[in-house]
Amino acid sequence: MITLMHVAAPLPADVSTPYLAVDLDVLDRNLRMMAASAAARGLALRPHAKTHKCLQVARRQMESGAVGLTVATISEAEVFAEAGFTDLFIAYPVWASSARARRLRALAEQVSLRVGVDSTEGARLLADAVRKTDVEVLVEIDSGHHRSGVQPRSAGEVAATAARHGLQVCGVFTFPGHGYGPGRRDKAAADEAEALEQAAAALDAAGVDARVRSGGSTPTASVADPGTLTEIRPGVYAFGDAQQVELGSCAWPDVALTAAATIVSKSGQRIILDAGSKVLGADQPTWATGGGRLPDYPHAHITALSEHHATAVFPEDRPAPRHGEIVRVAPNHVCSAVNLADELVIVSGGREVDRWAVAARGANT
Amino acid sequence: MITLMHVAAPLPADVSTPYLAVDLDVLDRNLRMMAASAAARGLALRPHAKTHKCLQVARRQMESGAVGLTVATISEAEVFAEAGFTDLFIAYPVWASSARARRLRALAEQVSLRVGVDSTEGARLLADAVRKTDVEVLVEIDSGHHRSGVQPRSAGEVAATAARHGLQVCGVFTFPGHGYGPGRRDKAAADEAEALEQAAAALDAAGVDARVRSGGSTPTASVADPGTLTEIRPGVYAFGDAQQVELGSCAWPDVALTAAATIVSKSGQRIILDAGSKVLGADQPTWATGGGRLPDYPHAHITALSEHHATAVFPEDRPAPRHGEIVRVAPNHVCSAVNLADELVIVSGGREVDRWAVAARGANT
Repeated sequence: MITLMHVAAPLPADVSTPYLAVDLDVLDRNLRMMAASAAARGLALRPHAKTHKCLQVARRQMESGAVGLTVATISEAEVFAEAGFTDLFIAYPVWASSARARRLRALAEQVSLRVGVDSTEGARLLADAVRKTDVEVLVEIDSGHHRSGVQPRSAGEVAATAARHGLQVCGVFTFPGHGYGPGRRDKAAADEAEALEQAAAALDAAGVDARVRSGGSTPTASVADPGTLTEIRPGVYAFGDAQQVELGSCAWPDVALTAAATIVSKSGQRIILDAGSKVLGADQPTWATGGGRLPDYPHAHITALSEHHATAVFPEDRPAPRHGEIVRVAPNHVCSAVNLADELVIVSGGREVDRWAVAARGANT
Repeated sequence: MITLMHVAAPLPADVSTPYLAVDLDVLDRNLRMMAASAAARGLALRPHAKTHKCLQVARRQMESGAVGLTVATISEAEVFAEAGFTDLFIAYPVWASSARARRLRALAEQVSLRVGVDSTEGARLLADAVRKTDVEVLVEIDSGHHRSGVQPRSAGEVAATAARHGLQVCGVFTFPGHGYGPGRRDKAAADEAEALEQAAAALDAAGVDARVRSGGSTPTASVADPGTLTEIRPGVYAFGDAQQVELGSCAWPDVALTAAATIVSKSGQRIILDAGSKVLGADQPTWATGGGRLPDYPHAHITALSEHHATAVFPEDRPAPRHGEIVRVAPNHVCSAVNLADELVIVSGGREVDRWAVAARGANT
């Protein structure tokens, strides 16, 4: 993404802190840049909506060239389907148990639906749950993150089982989550392409055409291999966060979402902010420098988070801001922060211009 | 708390996972035990409602002998005041900025309100914000957690400033959060008592009577010193969580709240559950054994959490449960998990008996 000179956006002071503020101009630039980057490589862009859970952001993504949305759960899909989005991919090994089967069937009748499977058991359950012409299936592959997904060589068996039960298998997908670490991006992107290539060959050997080969996280999106992949599914790129900055995926001026927090307590070089883990989320990978960052004070570190407090420490030679000042905090992982909020305060030029509901907040089922 | 033989409570299977289930009988036993323990020592019990954010739990706490509720924010206080609770303590260094002053004034007119301050600046702002006969003030003390709160010897200055501005100062409070670590409970409880004692003496020297000396976290509540403290404010004890079990504050049969999760993917001894950090919260102190625990499989460990996946690994000699099974997951920190959910599924004898709204979910301002 592009890096501009940093100009700190002022925040509205007449709203009780803590709240999540989105700089509309930065958001729109992020959406345009990723759409242009995907288009230039001939990759379909299917942004992951779990990051923003917002109808307004999803509409802007579709208007800037996305082919559809990715979601993580049936309930997220229900929210976006209800709002009129027509092309949804549940990039998750959907387990169509009795409690979910009816919902999945209704959803599949309503929109163009793709779902993930990663086991022969899951494929059989899915085939029983839905009308088979209503869904397309992608087999999930483990490309090195070791979470869900089958090994590439096993993808043919899952695809063949799904096809034998009448499901339409259209391809394979993976999440190269092991790219979330300093210096790991290129290796993860290479693993992703290799795993998808092998899995596509395994499907081919099983008599199934893998016309969709879907990958891509925000760290790896810029180096996703268009020789193998047909589609990318980044999510965080819309807002950015402290993790992405520390990983080098973006720079501070690209971070569109920050929490506005008040300094409620101060002791020397230690300040206490009223945005804690119930606002920022508690995500903190081992390589992170703290529990989030202060974009306007990059030399300060958040040394502790509790539910309603962030402790930030300033070095001895840098004056800490004063009691009562409002500062911006970039969460480590913006998806977690958004999922804690009922609404986002939309800011342009330091003025509040709108409020957007986090429509799919808490939609985990 | 009492430890019984462990009988795993079955969970309703007709609700889409993941969801948070509360065993009503265990909850009620936890509430009774803490009330009895406080009463036996002559300590007032003012449970922290940030744990449950539920009107139904708060009512049960009041019925079993609590003197009032503790909350963390003005917006939490607003939810409980609206529901008819009349005695609330905002145990936080309230910064009564313009955006908050009006709300605080309205709240103080509505209920018997206590609030925390930890600076002369904060005290002055508060005195300007509210009608001074409507609130009581407690000075927050740092007893070793090094978050908010003044040093005990500085409490007199803050109290004197508040009193000079017409506020009614009724005492001191602290949160001995440094007791959250294996083997740290007794030292933290001793620090708490010593700091409150010193602070009370500092107020006395400044001509202010510290009739309320409030402390107590769930780990330290059972050893809080009734020679010094007059009140305890535990929160987590109502539900329990994996952290409290690993700290020794309670045992598995005392854990009333668990997430019900489905095994959606499996690879050998590794299972993937559909309850991730957006259900359990991402809290993981360095001493925790993983990202939560499976109470019915204590030998398994949650080695990774992402937003919609928990990765649990079983030792080679222990068979892992099957694809599609529903298992219980105890979050590391129950306050974070509850704040992610819109409602709790209330279970008794393996049957759903009620649903309770998380009425103050997301009430952070």
